[in-house]
Amino acid sequence: MCHRHQGPSVSIAVVLFELGMQQPHVLLSYSSGGLTLLRVAIDRLDVALDEYAMRFLERTVGLSVSRLMQSITDQDLSQDPPLIDICYYGFSKSQFVNGDDLVWVPLYHLLPDQDHREPAATDSVKAAAHLPPVSDHDLDLLAAALNTLRRSLDRRPVIEEIEPVAFTLSYLQQRTEMLLGTSLHTQNFRRKILESGFLEPIDIAVAQSLGRPALLYQVRSSTRGATID
Amino acid sequence: MCHRHQGPSVSIAVVLFELGMQQPHVLLSYSSGGLTLLRVAIDRLDVALDEYAMRFLERTVGLSVSRLMQSITDQDLSQDPPLIDICYYGFSKSQFVNGDDLVWVPLYHLLPDQDHREPAATDSVKAAAHLPPVSDHDLDLLAAALNTLRRSLDRRPVIEEIEPVAFTLSYLQQRTEMLLGTSLHTQNFRRKILESGFLEPIDIAVAQSLGRPALLYQVRSSTRGATID
Repeated sequence: MCHRHQGPSVSIAVVLFELGMQQPHVLLSYSSGGLTLLRVAIDRLDVALDEYAMRFLERTVGLSVSRLMQSITDQDLSQDPPLIDICYYGFSKSQFVNGDDLVWVPLYHLLPDQDHREPAATDSVKAAAHLPPVSDHDLDLLAAALNTLRRSLDRRPVIEEIEPVAFTLSYLQQRTEMLLGTSLHTQNFRRKILESGFLEPIDIAVAQSLGRPALLYQVRSSTRGATID
Repeated sequence: MCHRHQGPSVSIAVVLFELGMQQPHVLLSYSSGGLTLLRVAIDRLDVALDEYAMRFLERTVGLSVSRLMQSITDQDLSQDPPLIDICYYGFSKSQFVNGDDLVWVPLYHLLPDQDHREPAATDSVKAAAHLPPVSDHDLDLLAAALNTLRRSLDRRPVIEEIEPVAFTLSYLQQRTEMLLGTSLHTQNFRRKILESGFLEPIDIAVAQSLGRPALLYQVRSSTRGATID
């Protein structure tokens, strides 16, 4: 006889963002008629949780990410046994992934309420009608990861692992607006980002179709890994 | 035969702060010659994780808290089986707890590096020598909870569950400095807190030994539960 103690099962859920396609996308997996977050059960834990998740990504999805950030840990009581999900999020440099069951879904098709920019919001609602179902639990995790990410942008406005070698302030503003789902005041954004000390100008300017050439910036090397506290 | 799969064990660790005693204190538990955070194994999960933790507190410590906030989830690989701790923090209104094995320890005796106010820091280092040992894992969880709390003060400078009915701005500044472990510029603090809209003055002023009577404030009722985003 085996009296097995039936505790909750524990897994890591990974929210992987891709920001190179005009609007943020999230990697989901087809599973029995619906879409789910990437998820790996924790069987044996011999490395730190984030390392465990990174190895899972590399093995299953063929993506190597340099860093995963922790979001919330949340329960799903509708599962039997109950599931505890430790949620991480990260950024993919590439949209090429292994696996026919994987799909990049526009973030705001999943979370239309999180996009406060005018025309985009209505588009998202329309498009969302065509998506396979995603569980409320997974949408909660996704919204929480987005929230964690948005707050982290206050402390660290650059996302080093996906930053190009050099970029204009317009590029950074567009991407920040895309992630925040709001439009920003250009002068305030520029003043804040330049005062933060995260960027340094490089001696190259790029021509623009209109107006003056735009200055190029790079992440200041002394701030790599730092946050504004 | 029973082939039991040996997964990690999962528990909730609770960091309970008390702020009424001149400096922040944390509730720890004596356990085999050392001190540990309050911790409850998750056997059967039939309620949300925070609710699970609140019931544990009420049952074991005799404290009822209205709210627990989630901090990090972290592994302890030195345990066998490995332990996953989901960490919550909260505030106790009272220092009276059930249980001879419980003790309130000054926060900065445990984390002297986190106190940047001058004389206090050296006192903490001296006092820390007399403490029973606390594991590195528990100190990591404690530091992470303090960090989460400090960040939350940016978004929500009042801690409603422990706020008195009415208080002066000096009181709030002292408490914020105590939690941040830094001294704040009084004019900046007052300007920021008044602009945040979290407080409203009430028509009572208290006499002070020196200078003008101090105005009393209360948490504005429309902001209860809100954060600055």
